[in-house]
Amino acid sequence: MGAKRILILNGPNLNLLGKRETAVYGDKSFEDYLVELKKQFAHVHVDYFQTNVEGELINYLQQSTHDGIILNAGGYTHTSVALRDAVAAIKIPVVEVHLSNIAARESFRHESLLSPVCAGCVFGFGLRSYELALTYFIQ
Amino acid sequence: MGAKRILILNGPNLNLLGKRETAVYGDKSFEDYLVELKKQFAHVHVDYFQTNVEGELINYLQQSTHDGIILNAGGYTHTSVALRDAVAAIKIPVVEVHLSNIAARESFRHESLLSPVCAGCVFGFGLRSYELALTYFIQ
Amino acid sequence: MGAKRILILNGPNLNLLGKRETAVYGDKSFEDYLVELKKQFAHVHVDYFQTNVEGELINYLQQSTHDGIILNAGGYTHTSVALRDAVAAIKIPVVEVHLSNIAARESFRHESLLSPVCAGCVFGFGLRSYELALTYFIQ
Amino acid sequence: MGAKRILILNGPNLNLLGKRETAVYGDKSFEDYLVELKKQFAHVHVDYFQTNVEGELINYLQQSTHDGIILNAGGYTHTSVALRDAVAAIKIPVVEVHLSNIAARESFRHESLLSPVCAGCVFGFGLRSYELALTYFIQ
Amino acid sequence: MGAKRILILNGPNLNLLGKRETAVYGDKSFEDYLVELKKQFAHVHVDYFQTNVEGELINYLQQSTHDGIILNAGGYTHTSVALRDAVAAIKIPVVEVHLSNIAARESFRHESLLSPVCAGCVFGFGLRSYELALTYFIQ
Amino acid sequence: MGAKRILILNGPNLNLLGKRETAVYGDKSFEDYLVELKKQFAHVHVDYFQTNVEGELINYLQQSTHDGIILNAGGYTHTSVALRDAVAAIKIPVVEVHLSNIAARESFRHESLLSPVCAGCVFGFGLRSYELALTYFIQ
Amino acid sequence: MGAKRILILNGPNLNLLGKRETAVYGDKSFEDYLVELKKQFAHVHVDYFQTNVEGELINYLQQSTHDGIILNAGGYTHTSVALRDAVAAIKIPVVEVHLSNIAARESFRHESLLSPVCAGCVFGFGLRSYELALTYFIQ
Amino acid sequence: MGAKRILILNGPNLNLLGKRETAVYGDKSFEDYLVELKKQFAHVHVDYFQTNVEGELINYLQQSTHDGIILNAGGYTHTSVALRDAVAAIKIPVVEVHLSNIAARESFRHESLLSPVCAGCVFGFGLRSYELALTYFIQ
Amino acid sequence: MGAKRILILNGPNLNLLGKRETAVYGDKSFEDYLVELKKQFAHVHVDYFQTNVEGELINYLQQSTHDGIILNAGGYTHTSVALRDAVAAIKIPVVEVHLSNIAARESFRHESLLSPVCAGCVFGFGLRSYELALTYFIQ
Amino acid sequence: MGAKRILILNGPNLNLLGKRETAVYGDKSFEDYLVELKKQFAHVHVDYFQTNVEGELINYLQQSTHDGIILNAGGYTHTSVALRDAVAAIKIPVVEVHLSNIAARESFRHESLLSPVCAGCVFGFGLRSYELALTYFIQ
Amino acid sequence: MGAKRILILNGPNLNLLGKRETAVYGDKSFEDYLVELKKQFAHVHVDYFQTNVEGELINYLQQSTHDGIILNAGGYTHTSVALRDAVAAIKIPVVEVHLSNIAARESFRHESLLSPVCAGCVFGFGLRSYELALTYFIQ
Amino acid sequence: MGAKRILILNGPNLNLLGKRETAVYGDKSFEDYLVELKKQFAHVHVDYFQTNVEGELINYLQQSTHDGIILNAGGYTHTSVALRDAVAAIKIPVVEVHLSNIAARESFRHESLLSPVCAGCVFGFGLRSYELALTYFIQ
Repeated sequence: MGAKRILILNGPNLNLLGKRETAVYGDKSFEDYLVELKKQFAHVHVDYFQTNVEGELINYLQQSTHDGIILNAGGYTHTSVALRDAVAAIKIPVVEVHLSNIAARESFRHESLLSPVCAGCVFGFGLRSYELALTYFIQ
Repeated sequence: MGAKRILILNGPNLNLLGKRETAVYGDKSFEDYLVELKKQFAHVHVDYFQTNVEGELINYLQQSTHDGIILNAGGYTHTSVALRDAVAAIKIPVVEVHLSNIAARESFRHESLLSPVCAGCVFGFGLRSYELALTYFIQ
Repeated sequence: MGAKRILILNGPNLNLLGKRETAVYGDKSFEDYLVELKKQFAHVHVDYFQTNVEGELINYLQQSTHDGIILNAGGYTHTSVALRDAVAAIKIPVVEVHLSNIAARESFRHESLLSPVCAGCVFGFGLRSYELALTYFIQ
Repeated sequence: MGAKRILILNGPNLNLLGKRETAVYGDKSFEDYLVELKKQFAHVHVDYFQTNVEGELINYLQQSTHDGIILNAGGYTHTSVALRDAVAAIKIPVVEVHLSNIAARESFRHESLLSPVCAGCVFGFGLRSYELALTYFIQ
Repeated sequence: MGAKRILILNGPNLNLLGKRETAVYGDKSFEDYLVELKKQFAHVHVDYFQTNVEGELINYLQQSTHDGIILNAGGYTHTSVALRDAVAAIKIPVVEVHLSNIAARESFRHESLLSPVCAGCVFGFGLRSYELALTYFIQ
Repeated sequence: MGAKRILILNGPNLNLLGKRETAVYGDKSFEDYLVELKKQFAHVHVDYFQTNVEGELINYLQQSTHDGIILNAGGYTHTSVALRDAVAAIKIPVVEVHLSNIAARESFRHESLLSPVCAGCVFGFGLRSYELALTYFIQ
Repeated sequence: MGAKRILILNGPNLNLLGKRETAVYGDKSFEDYLVELKKQFAHVHVDYFQTNVEGELINYLQQSTHDGIILNAGGYTHTSVALRDAVAAIKIPVVEVHLSNIAARESFRHESLLSPVCAGCVFGFGLRSYELALTYFIQ
Repeated sequence: MGAKRILILNGPNLNLLGKRETAVYGDKSFEDYLVELKKQFAHVHVDYFQTNVEGELINYLQQSTHDGIILNAGGYTHTSVALRDAVAAIKIPVVEVHLSNIAARESFRHESLLSPVCAGCVFGFGLRSYELALTYFIQ
Repeated sequence: MGAKRILILNGPNLNLLGKRETAVYGDKSFEDYLVELKKQFAHVHVDYFQTNVEGELINYLQQSTHDGIILNAGGYTHTSVALRDAVAAIKIPVVEVHLSNIAARESFRHESLLSPVCAGCVFGFGLRSYELALTYFIQ
Repeated sequence: MGAKRILILNGPNLNLLGKRETAVYGDKSFEDYLVELKKQFAHVHVDYFQTNVEGELINYLQQSTHDGIILNAGGYTHTSVALRDAVAAIKIPVVEVHLSNIAARESFRHESLLSPVCAGCVFGFGLRSYELALTYFIQ
Repeated sequence: MGAKRILILNGPNLNLLGKRETAVYGDKSFEDYLVELKKQFAHVHVDYFQTNVEGELINYLQQSTHDGIILNAGGYTHTSVALRDAVAAIKIPVVEVHLSNIAARESFRHESLLSPVCAGCVFGFGLRSYELALTYFIQ
Repeated sequence: MGAKRILILNGPNLNLLGKRETAVYGDKSFEDYLVELKKQFAHVHVDYFQTNVEGELINYLQQSTHDGIILNAGGYTHTSVALRDAVAAIKIPVVEVHLSNIAARESFRHESLLSPVCAGCVFGFGLRSYELALTYFIQ
């Protein structure tokens, strides 16, 4: 049996990581972090996409043939019924991650439309949220 | 006078019809259904587009020169002020359709932002919703 | 096999159609429209009742032995749990119709208590709403 | 001193008991149950009325000269200020009963407009709710 | 030109006036009060109906050919969209009256569905509310 | 026994009556109307004050020694707890009047903080609202 | 087969019954009432516990091996998700009782978190609420 | 030091300006207005983009190297957390403009998700809103 | 034709500008700023009033004969229906300004009662908000 | 160092204390109480003002040069953003007092707009609330 | 007559005072403060208990025989109906205190369930809140 | 440096795991799972406590001297301000875990009072939620 194949899917503004607001989020870009993550999980095949367009996130979800998806939908988390429908429609388990603790931020970020249809949720551990989600998939 | 020209515009995840959750939605794809529909309304010219991208739905609405539009905006139905504005801005009558009875589903699906600016609404008849909407336009 | 038997059930104030507010609703009474409708659907047996009393609507629903019911509950649409229970209790499929687009009117008309238990909904096409509902039943 | 006289008053759709949705409510009609109840409480005079019309429930309440009233107002429980006013206006103690546990059903059934003006409430014991209410009156 | 013709229409439980809760509402029945009112406005033709049935109030409104209607809809004031539609549909001016000051009672009595479609409102003057409403019509 | 002494107290913007928005409110100033009103109720002593300042309305209420007060508090109706407290604190009966039917206007005008502490309410009869209120006091 | 074994479980402040606020609740302690209740239901084995500590109520529910539980959770009724979870987790049927009619008290007492997971509810009959609940279990 | 460089970014449906609903918005397209604006502010370098796609607005914001951005996000103003995050993430000051007074329109347009993260807001001056925003940047 | 005449009207606490909380608002008083503003707009006649009294703001609005009014109503912005009525009643266009971005402050400052009746709104540019508003009036 | 200087500032209707509703508030006027208070705190310089005008309360707060202010804003407590801004703008500590326990009164009195910007709050001790507030300042 | 006997009752986490978050609450433990307080009120007998368990707070309240109780219920203030019932049930006057100004903190701390049944409230004076409460009891 | 010391703290009803509702939660008790977990993380010192009493959870949190705490507060998650205060008061990082996806359950479970003060959240992975939380602490 071959290596597990996992898709990491990042939504709007996550391409700015490490480039802007470095005081808050650190100066490491997601691409740099991805290199480390792949080393730590050498036996897993990890694909990665990022887009600012809501509909393209849906496209990626629909076209995925991976064993699991780690989804950080950014601001669409709280507003996109369409994204939720896509997660619910596909058979691949999706783990929702967020860098920050969304419950501790503005009230419009408290509710995630995605959580009810995800396999599980990992919030607030910074970039390590992805590592914990990956840990879930590899066993 | 030539045949009436009608645009059927489908939003996010409706491309999955017949491929996923077939227990709920049946195993007929929208494309297959469209063939039947065109046979039933042989004297009508029917165009069809589907996209997962909210802004492209707006593009299609703006560029349409049809006599009527049948719109199933999927998950954008409940969240898109921009789509509503597009429907309100164009002169072509738009009929809103849904496969399922949105009033019988989760509470965030009860309100449609589009309904108030549509010519009429047909909800809950499965694929036959499109047929009823088309019936409206042909007379 | 005999002709399909359909009941059209109209609630409060629909008896005023064509007699009052003719600028808005036209000068055609429902009885006049019914004559046309029956011609258009000559092969269907259509019964028709109207009442202003909520409990009598429930009585009509309970006593019906038709193949389908087209229900325009008027103002009771938004307030009657009892009517909803009656629709849910009987086995005959009920299609909810409204002349106007209730989503475009006062906020207390946006929510229909009946929709979640109806087979489908047709709103906003004026008197033609009945025709579309009838189209649903005849195939 | 003669036997106590109790009125059981059933509202909309309770006449369907035992005839429809028997999987949920059983195949015993309220009339059949009434026979048993009268046997069990042989020393009590029990009158029984059912109506689907809200205003007739008010008429029955106003005209009653019983020692106590057991009221199952069905769907009017949650919407009828007029019924509440009638219960509050008469001097006879009224016990509110429901077959099902209304707190465990849809949110629009959680609040009873009648409870605050009733002598007591018995919910969720099926047909036995009437028996418990009757037990209250006979001592 | 003949005398003005005014209809006084009383809704649920107002038939109990003077018979029950006399400490609050006094021991004068509405019929007794009506005799005095007719004396005071001898030059006006006053008709009077009372019913506990919501739909019958609608019937009375629809069939009226009076110059004005004084409506006390009791508990239906706060819940009946159908009654509101009837008031809005007819051309005769309707004045809404209440014996008590509904704004000073339970919160579910604060909002009247009828007020927005009535010619004017007179609340809280006890039986004299009818007199003030009548004063409005006679000039 | 001398003539009854009534205070008419008008709040903010009512000094503009007859000068602005005459299409809506007519071209009659309140002062002109007052002359007519005094003629109609020749046996009553009527005082009149108007102010745009919330606290001065309170001052007038506190200092009044009249037999009754007719209060049109304009925009303060919906926002002034202080004014409500003043009405509640004094012993003189206060009748609340409004030219327009506040229930038919913007939602922030639906609730009056004053109504629960007033003797009665007269809304929506235009300038005749004052006449009806005065009618109440003279008997 | 032996006698039925029923647990009566009382929550916070019910130990004050008969000692404080006797004007409202009478001067009978629950212990005194229990003696009478046991006499009336001589063939039933009744255990009784009271505690002011939320977690101890949960302990009692978890450790119970009775045939049925009568639970008056006092103030925890409206706030304790943990107690609700305990009732839902055990297999023994639980009947919720309250001395007073909670729907007629402050609004924060209107909703019971326990009702949806209880077998039935008996509210507002004073101490007799326990008797009615016991009646349910003995047949 | 060279001329200031300002980006005007228009969201969904603003490309229809001057082509549709000309009675409301006038018959001047934004492109025509832009020509005038550039004349009036000859010493400023003005770039202009319009798109109906939410994610492309985010792309434009992220890639901008201008001295200031004037953003009219149309319908996305009220629903897009992702767009708000983009405005908050970049260092360039963003001024929010709207042609119409959004506070005077439907309630779902009253709240702007963007306002809290913008440098300032200019609403309701029609096309002149852009001119005022530009005035802010040039000093 | 003479110079345009503009009234700047400041509400409660704006007289403290430059004297208190200078870290936030700077140490420039509004009077000082006014001198600069008048220099910049030498061809405009600018009148200025400030008051802490809500009713006096209404007086100023009613008595104004200017070509335009710039209104910063401070804390009354969010609570004064009376002020809103005054703005709506007069014919002179009123531009609403705020120093700070009210949407980014406490939630009770998010809604302005004045915005819907103003010609336009300028928020969040500090003292320059007045300059932008003045720019609107001079062309 | 001289005596501490404290300002007691009373808002609307507090001038009626001891003159009206004496059953509730006692027959002692605030002036009488003030004499006693000054005796008890002989070493403190106490100034006192009362006004019914919201804007004058703001004036007093702005002009104060005392060491501390005791503010009972009466009905303005719950509605005045402008008063709150004044308290927040000045440097002198303000203690909020109320005679009654506002949490035990009508729901619109539960929230105080002033509390969040006051140094502390003393509610419900009748006139002794002022004494406790004064105790705070003298140490 | 002997010295007054007062119970100070502290709820959850108040045992951490002076040990954790000393930057906010200072480094003085409540026990240390109690020593000072007892010195200041040498003629009063002060008892003190602290517990993290909600039900034990109720036990202390029920068993108290003091002349007055000063209660800081910490986090239970906002959630405990059971605690409120205990305060309401006992005859001893209870003064509610809080170190911080709860109205200035998170919104779920704004409402106290205890306030409506307490004799009075002292909020926001730090440890001195206890002193002010004690001052109330000693006179 | 020695092994990391981690406390796992389980709240109400988690002691039932594996004993009740095994269809949903499996037949493995938490104690059994703990044995496996300790094997998997052999180099970590793991302590474990469970209690149904809210205040004892607070006691455990306050007394802990571990390097990290994994907290599953069960039903107290959604209601306990006191527990939140305890988590916020201590310096040890706390990770919140839940077996189920609370966002997909009843609405009163959607909001966690604890999340905003926790270091991170892991929801919905069943017993593996503890493993992921532990993974966070060991690096």
